[in-house]
Amino acid sequence: MTMTDFSTTKPTKAEELRQWISAHRDDYLDALRQLVAIESVSVDPQRATEVRRCAQRVRDALFDAGAEFAEVFETEGHPVVVGRFLQAGPSAPTALVYLHYDVQPEGPCEQWSSPAFAGVIDGDAMVGRGTADDKGPLFMHLGALRALIECSGTLPVNVSVIVDGEEEVGSPSLRSWLEEHADMVAADLVVISDTSMLGLDEPSIVLGTRGNTSLEVEVRTLDHDVHSGKYGGAAANAALVLSRMLASLHDADGAVTVPGFYDEVTEMPAEARTALMAAAPDAQRWLTGIGARSEGGEVGRALVERVWARPTLEVVGVWAGYTGEGMKTIIPAVATAKISCRLVDDQDPVEIARRVGAHLQALGSGQADVVVRLGRGGRAVTTAWTSPVLPVAMDAYRYGYGKDPVLIREGGTIPIAATLGEIVGAEVLFLGFGLHDQNEHAPNEWLSITNFERATNAIVRFWQLLPAALTQPREVLA
Amino acid sequence: MTMTDFSTTKPTKAEELRQWISAHRDDYLDALRQLVAIESVSVDPQRATEVRRCAQRVRDALFDAGAEFAEVFETEGHPVVVGRFLQAGPSAPTALVYLHYDVQPEGPCEQWSSPAFAGVIDGDAMVGRGTADDKGPLFMHLGALRALIECSGTLPVNVSVIVDGEEEVGSPSLRSWLEEHADMVAADLVVISDTSMLGLDEPSIVLGTRGNTSLEVEVRTLDHDVHSGKYGGAAANAALVLSRMLASLHDADGAVTVPGFYDEVTEMPAEARTALMAAAPDAQRWLTGIGARSEGGEVGRALVERVWARPTLEVVGVWAGYTGEGMKTIIPAVATAKISCRLVDDQDPVEIARRVGAHLQALGSGQADVVVRLGRGGRAVTTAWTSPVLPVAMDAYRYGYGKDPVLIREGGTIPIAATLGEIVGAEVLFLGFGLHDQNEHAPNEWLSITNFERATNAIVRFWQLLPAALTQPREVLA
Repeated sequence: MTMTDFSTTKPTKAEELRQWISAHRDDYLDALRQLVAIESVSVDPQRATEVRRCAQRVRDALFDAGAEFAEVFETEGHPVVVGRFLQAGPSAPTALVYLHYDVQPEGPCEQWSSPAFAGVIDGDAMVGRGTADDKGPLFMHLGALRALIECSGTLPVNVSVIVDGEEEVGSPSLRSWLEEHADMVAADLVVISDTSMLGLDEPSIVLGTRGNTSLEVEVRTLDHDVHSGKYGGAAANAALVLSRMLASLHDADGAVTVPGFYDEVTEMPAEARTALMAAAPDAQRWLTGIGARSEGGEVGRALVERVWARPTLEVVGVWAGYTGEGMKTIIPAVATAKISCRLVDDQDPVEIARRVGAHLQALGSGQADVVVRLGRGGRAVTTAWTSPVLPVAMDAYRYGYGKDPVLIREGGTIPIAATLGEIVGAEVLFLGFGLHDQNEHAPNEWLSITNFERATNAIVRFWQLLPAALTQPREVLA
Repeated sequence: MTMTDFSTTKPTKAEELRQWISAHRDDYLDALRQLVAIESVSVDPQRATEVRRCAQRVRDALFDAGAEFAEVFETEGHPVVVGRFLQAGPSAPTALVYLHYDVQPEGPCEQWSSPAFAGVIDGDAMVGRGTADDKGPLFMHLGALRALIECSGTLPVNVSVIVDGEEEVGSPSLRSWLEEHADMVAADLVVISDTSMLGLDEPSIVLGTRGNTSLEVEVRTLDHDVHSGKYGGAAANAALVLSRMLASLHDADGAVTVPGFYDEVTEMPAEARTALMAAAPDAQRWLTGIGARSEGGEVGRALVERVWARPTLEVVGVWAGYTGEGMKTIIPAVATAKISCRLVDDQDPVEIARRVGAHLQALGSGQADVVVRLGRGGRAVTTAWTSPVLPVAMDAYRYGYGKDPVLIREGGTIPIAATLGEIVGAEVLFLGFGLHDQNEHAPNEWLSITNFERATNAIVRFWQLLPAALTQPREVLA
């Protein structure tokens, strides 16, 4: 990989920007604390008013940071807030940043070391629901934008910011809102700050997230459960038929046997694989951390590749027959399984679910009635190894964290990333600053103040260097 | 098979006996109606007093029929009633008859055509809970014994009658009661009248019932469920591991693959197989009646052999992971299955469960922690094809029903039959007079009055001819 070394082209006013960020850090932490105090728990209908109040405060914060436009947009659910920083002017490229202001429920209050919505500072940590996910990152971006505007009077790129109010409930309103406001979200690059780094001193860039898809399969061998004495040996057992179907979905080497499952999956370039292997956490610790009795996935591939860069098929749940206390001597008529797949590259969620379903239908044919119910899913999102924005991001982390970032991936799925990439029609870059131990979705969620400041500096650097990368022909980013 | 044709040795007073039975039939139906009126529902603690009252009435009925001894024995549950008809004297052989006086709950009252405990006569049917199961058969036996005593002043054999009060709840007290009263139940033959014939005009003898055994297997691959994005491809999936284990328990021909599973199973003698095939109900109707989408059991064996005379292994229930609404993207840490086997010949319930459990342990080894919980079971009971009591039973049915009986089996299990055979140390004969459509355990249970009279005659004939068979060397019956 050839990479322009932007770090040698020292930006003007670099020291001034650093100082501005350092000097105003506590102001932004105060503003963050005030936002944390608003209980914007999107899943709780009792707190819908708080969610709306939070949206209004976010709009105000966008204006405070220098947005030329900021508005709370109503949806069928909670509002979407938009801020537009168009200081760079119509000839400059535009980036779209996705964040969210809603939070998870606080859970058991007695497990919090300080009140969940207080934002108490304890050493390097601000403790509170939403400090890490995702109100902290919101203020990292607002601080970076404000710093640039304050120190240079303008911005190197135009930046549109979408702050979702329904991320924690699956963003049900966002797609249609995006489609209806295509002009407002038009951009040359989508930036998502919702992923995690390996650690505070291990800056890392997530080059890709896996997609997912799901389906449910119901197998029926009989009109109803029958007595295992009267019919055992005569009637096909739905639990056994389903077990055989599920058992055959992987071969002896752990590869998925569904015809066409790997059709859109490509092997990683050697360089990318090498980088991935270098970035990989210790495989053994990965497994012992969850008490794994054995390994899953494809034989002959490294664990990190299996989790980050290969598709999987898992049985999420299965049930049949009698599952209560003691024993009931029946042959079950019906057996059901929930199946979930992780996807990579160009695997289409609908098409993969359809192929798995068709294969299950074929497996059960002649033995049972097989009903398949297709679920929802999202595509994988990958930043190309050759993308011109990648060296920019690497330089930004190096600048913010004083250390070369490693290039990693995440096995999970961020459905909104694929949606944004698709609707905006631009490349997606994960510019994430999370830490793995921040207790997101758990009691004692916290934000590292050191990380807050480093990330703000990294974002400033990213916007400064981005225009050079985006002035390359648009096709490169497709 | 050589069979003594007892029907040519016309018993004395045969016509007199038939007439006595015909003349007293309505008296016995009256007595049955009075017993049906007592709501001896053993599962219902509210009706424990009724159960006890029924036991006392049974004792009285035993005395009325000519018992020299009759008593209600207390147990930890409901009482056992014993009647002894020892008129044949100490040098004559003794048979032990097992019956029960408790009944199933009546279920939804509005579905009964007449009150559940009224014993209303409707054409050839007496309708009521317990008329068929098992108060009717009790009076068939009492009528037969009384007829013999009335017409000849004695009995050809001594007959001990045990009338259980807990059959419908699994006879929890009976085994220890039997062990404590070994002298009272000593016998040369155990007779159980709790099986069914193919029809009122299709007399049939059940030559064997299958045994059963059960176990539960729990497979653990992880300390707890994990996120399928973070660990999919790394962690072994308990649901998939269990599916593969269950799928491997039968080979492609439907035979059970557990080592040693068939060790105690023998092939039927050709003559027995021919008789079984001749007696078999229509296989296609058997399957369409339950809406079977395909067949189970061992390829290459007739359906009737598979259900009546071969062991099976069924998954009764299975569950793992997320089974609620929608989808949860997890990898299940634990998967559990309940397994039930039907046994034949000398398969020991404890040993077979142990072998299946050990095989499951071996299958999961290296992949998962496997915990096996062994359940309870009962042995198969088979009347030997060469048993000297078989021709006696055949003659009895021929005499009572005017037609040669066919020799059938039952795929289900009557645990008490094995227990009685084992504790008494004698051969077990199923002398059953049930009809398959009598709604036992359902609303509108009924008894055919024609069947009642025919069965009483058959039992008389059976006792008359039995001594000749039992005077053969005792070893023959072992």
